[in-house]
Amino acid sequence: MRYDSLQTGLYSLRANKLFELTVVSVILLSALVIGAKTYSISPTFMVLVGWLDIAITVFFLLEISFRFMGEPRKWRFFNNPWNLFDTIIVVVSLIPVEDSELALIGRLIRIFRVLRMVSIVPELRLLLNSLLKAMPQLGYVILLMFIIFYIYAAVGASFFAEINPSLWQDISISMLTLFRVMTFEDWTDVMYEVMEVYGYAWVYFLSFIFLTTFAFLNMVIGIVVNVMENEHSKEREAEAIANGDVTLDDLKQELAEIKALLRK
Amino acid sequence: MRYDSLQTGLYSLRANKLFELTVVSVILLSALVIGAKTYSISPTFMVLVGWLDIAITVFFLLEISFRFMGEPRKWRFFNNPWNLFDTIIVVVSLIPVEDSELALIGRLIRIFRVLRMVSIVPELRLLLNSLLKAMPQLGYVILLMFIIFYIYAAVGASFFAEINPSLWQDISISMLTLFRVMTFEDWTDVMYEVMEVYGYAWVYFLSFIFLTTFAFLNMVIGIVVNVMENEHSKEREAEAIANGDVTLDDLKQELAEIKALLRK
Amino acid sequence: MRYDSLQTGLYSLRANKLFELTVVSVILLSALVIGAKTYSISPTFMVLVGWLDIAITVFFLLEISFRFMGEPRKWRFFNNPWNLFDTIIVVVSLIPVEDSELALIGRLIRIFRVLRMVSIVPELRLLLNSLLKAMPQLGYVILLMFIIFYIYAAVGASFFAEINPSLWQDISISMLTLFRVMTFEDWTDVMYEVMEVYGYAWVYFLSFIFLTTFAFLNMVIGIVVNVMENEHSKEREAEAIANGDVTLDDLKQELAEIKALLRK
Amino acid sequence: MRYDSLQTGLYSLRANKLFELTVVSVILLSALVIGAKTYSISPTFMVLVGWLDIAITVFFLLEISFRFMGEPRKWRFFNNPWNLFDTIIVVVSLIPVEDSELALIGRLIRIFRVLRMVSIVPELRLLLNSLLKAMPQLGYVILLMFIIFYIYAAVGASFFAEINPSLWQDISISMLTLFRVMTFEDWTDVMYEVMEVYGYAWVYFLSFIFLTTFAFLNMVIGIVVNVMENEHSKEREAEAIANGDVTLDDLKQELAEIKALLRK
Repeated sequence: MRYDSLQTGLYSLRANKLFELTVVSVILLSALVIGAKTYSISPTFMVLVGWLDIAITVFFLLEISFRFMGEPRKWRFFNNPWNLFDTIIVVVSLIPVEDSELALIGRLIRIFRVLRMVSIVPELRLLLNSLLKAMPQLGYVILLMFIIFYIYAAVGASFFAEINPSLWQDISISMLTLFRVMTFEDWTDVMYEVMEVYGYAWVYFLSFIFLTTFAFLNMVIGIVVNVMENEHSKEREAEAIANGDVTLDDLKQELAEIKALLRK
Repeated sequence: MRYDSLQTGLYSLRANKLFELTVVSVILLSALVIGAKTYSISPTFMVLVGWLDIAITVFFLLEISFRFMGEPRKWRFFNNPWNLFDTIIVVVSLIPVEDSELALIGRLIRIFRVLRMVSIVPELRLLLNSLLKAMPQLGYVILLMFIIFYIYAAVGASFFAEINPSLWQDISISMLTLFRVMTFEDWTDVMYEVMEVYGYAWVYFLSFIFLTTFAFLNMVIGIVVNVMENEHSKEREAEAIANGDVTLDDLKQELAEIKALLRK
Repeated sequence: MRYDSLQTGLYSLRANKLFELTVVSVILLSALVIGAKTYSISPTFMVLVGWLDIAITVFFLLEISFRFMGEPRKWRFFNNPWNLFDTIIVVVSLIPVEDSELALIGRLIRIFRVLRMVSIVPELRLLLNSLLKAMPQLGYVILLMFIIFYIYAAVGASFFAEINPSLWQDISISMLTLFRVMTFEDWTDVMYEVMEVYGYAWVYFLSFIFLTTFAFLNMVIGIVVNVMENEHSKEREAEAIANGDVTLDDLKQELAEIKALLRK
Repeated sequence: MRYDSLQTGLYSLRANKLFELTVVSVILLSALVIGAKTYSISPTFMVLVGWLDIAITVFFLLEISFRFMGEPRKWRFFNNPWNLFDTIIVVVSLIPVEDSELALIGRLIRIFRVLRMVSIVPELRLLLNSLLKAMPQLGYVILLMFIIFYIYAAVGASFFAEINPSLWQDISISMLTLFRVMTFEDWTDVMYEVMEVYGYAWVYFLSFIFLTTFAFLNMVIGIVVNVMENEHSKEREAEAIANGDVTLDDLKQELAEIKALLRK
């Protein structure tokens, strides 16, 4: 009985705006602590930051515990990927930072705590969900782009490896170089170097730029059309509700029936 | 009585096209004066420019006074942010430039006088208003982008600070470096330097570029959809007026009633 | 009588597809001649190119004369800006190239003859016309962008001139530097140099990049919306024709009248 | 009889999902083999890769033979450009790589085998087809862009050739330099060098950037509008089917007839 009322209390706590605001504030504080650590600060302040760090870890541990205890059906808690994400972040941040072996991961996890902002603010969660939803539709364009990259990288690694090994040594380094060419970052330096050996190498670079630009444009247009269609379908639904799914064809049949009645 | 007619006169002056044109001309003149000052000019011409400067300041002071006196309800004058903006620009430009302490602000204010162009030309005011209106809707995308920047900058400042302090010293300098990476400005130099210590640093840079490009694309699409929706809603309103808010469903009910009448 | 039939003949020549094709071929030939001249070629070939040049000039002179003589109303000939453009190109290309004083203009005019491609191919003429039509609507965005550039250039020329005169000497050189910053071309070099003197100069550069990117985006969206609206209005017109300007409201009134007739 | 049943069997094989999956797997394997070759690998592994290479070639040869034999009407097989593409890739890859004369082509063909991914996955084939369909509509914009490039390259090669022959030597090298300027890759270096001789050369570069950006924007907008129109026409067709090609005008005429019947 006592546990049940506790659970109900904790469940209502989750929907409490003040509680949400407190969590957001603590996340912001943890972000500031992370930022502060990157500056060269006095040892006294460093100690304070250390204590703050522990306090934030404890607060997050308590918060996630409350959340879990407030859940009526425990097994559903981890079905929500955001809850899973929160729990992992909190649990891993319990690893002591002093241990030099795991210090790296510990520090990274502390930084990733800022990402909890996304899991706590509903609007950001919505935004990210809609981004992820747009992804599968773009899958084939991304696959096509990867094929283009792979083929060009294979050609590059086969023919240009001797010219400049640091750029064309193997297929993975060549792909990185091609990504650089795609962003137009000193791409002419890369091209001119190759052109000294293969005079027609500009065909390779220009065709690559054209193909990737074209594929990228297609990806952008894919997203735009996707977003537009969602808008249109929403609109059409609203219209369909207003019209009660009546089409002009329905009306014409009605009129034909009326005419028949009149002619009788 | 006399003051009232003066006020009416000044009020009508505000709407006068010739007056507006004069103000625009003076603003253009002030812009030219600012431009001329940046060239190495003869002392004689410098004196002329100085006198022009004073004349422009006096003209703007008179203009804003006329505007204020022409306003029937004085308290409403500063409710308009453009009036407030104009007044601040004019008042602060009265500060004598010779005073070396405030000379910097004085010079800046003289330059900002060109911005009065926006407050005087209605089309530019409209354009800026519509830009500002689009802003709040983009707020969450900008927040998401800031979170991405903050996390990557924290990681950068934590791990790369020793490699090149001038780029990764603390979180604010790291954010500036990441902005540079986002604009593709010599980003490979930054990456190759880091990759000499951390071989897998390309994951950091490539994932950052993908995330920010994706977020930026979303912002652009957000603006486009926003603009499109405004257009559509205008269109739908025009259609609704033509249709008198009649839907096909309404028509079907009318036809059902007619049928009932006929069957009686 | 004979002149009249000649005129009719020449007029029909203008619409002749074969004649158009010949002109296009000659323009292409002139483009090839221009291109060939930029290579180091043998003197024999040079002489041939020289003769070709003269032949092309004569051909264009004849063509424009035929066109003019074929026009029934002479005064309307120069009303068409494309005819005016063609005539100027042809007349100025009569200037002898050997004269070193005018050689520069002569060579340029020979190059601009390639532009006659646009005036002869109807699709290109249409494309250019539609581009020019979109321009006035973008005027205010371009004006806003110019104001942003001018203000930032004035600030730059006032404060950074001593740091690097070659980049910030006066307002026009500063505007060129800012255009370079807008294209992200080594903009960090420009910024870091200034930041050594003014630590907060990144505010200047980042705000400039944000403002111009935003204004540029607006220009793009302006063009897109413009194009879309043209498409929509075409569509709506087609729909209005199909519906005979009948709205749902009209139909409702018809139904009300029928009801009244039945209730009589 | 036996051949017929074999043909039917091979024809059904083509539509078999498992067979398709096997082909995709072999293509992926061939891609991995190509990638592996670019790394410095042990001789033992090299031999394995060599055998894999032969196995893949044989598999592709068998696959294309099955495909051809499965086709009921042989002459229709090569009407499909994808089949032609596949056949060429497979036949040319039979050329022995050891022959140093043809080794280059042999290696390239082995890399192009990855492109068979596009011919085997229907979604990628669809994507590429839709890209190619959008092309002709963009033809005139590309032609206009080429004219702009050609004229500017002619001017560049005529006037700047002595300043820096490696950038402006002849019209083709000038076009490559202008493409570099269009991608904003160290374009100011190119411009500042020219400006030392021709002070007003910035007009040349800035006008070129404006024109190409404008033409590029038009191309993008062209694609977007094209895509949108396809979406709209699909939508309108769906609507037309629902309405049975009935317009409001039709309904009005029906109502007029009913009225006439009532007034009788």
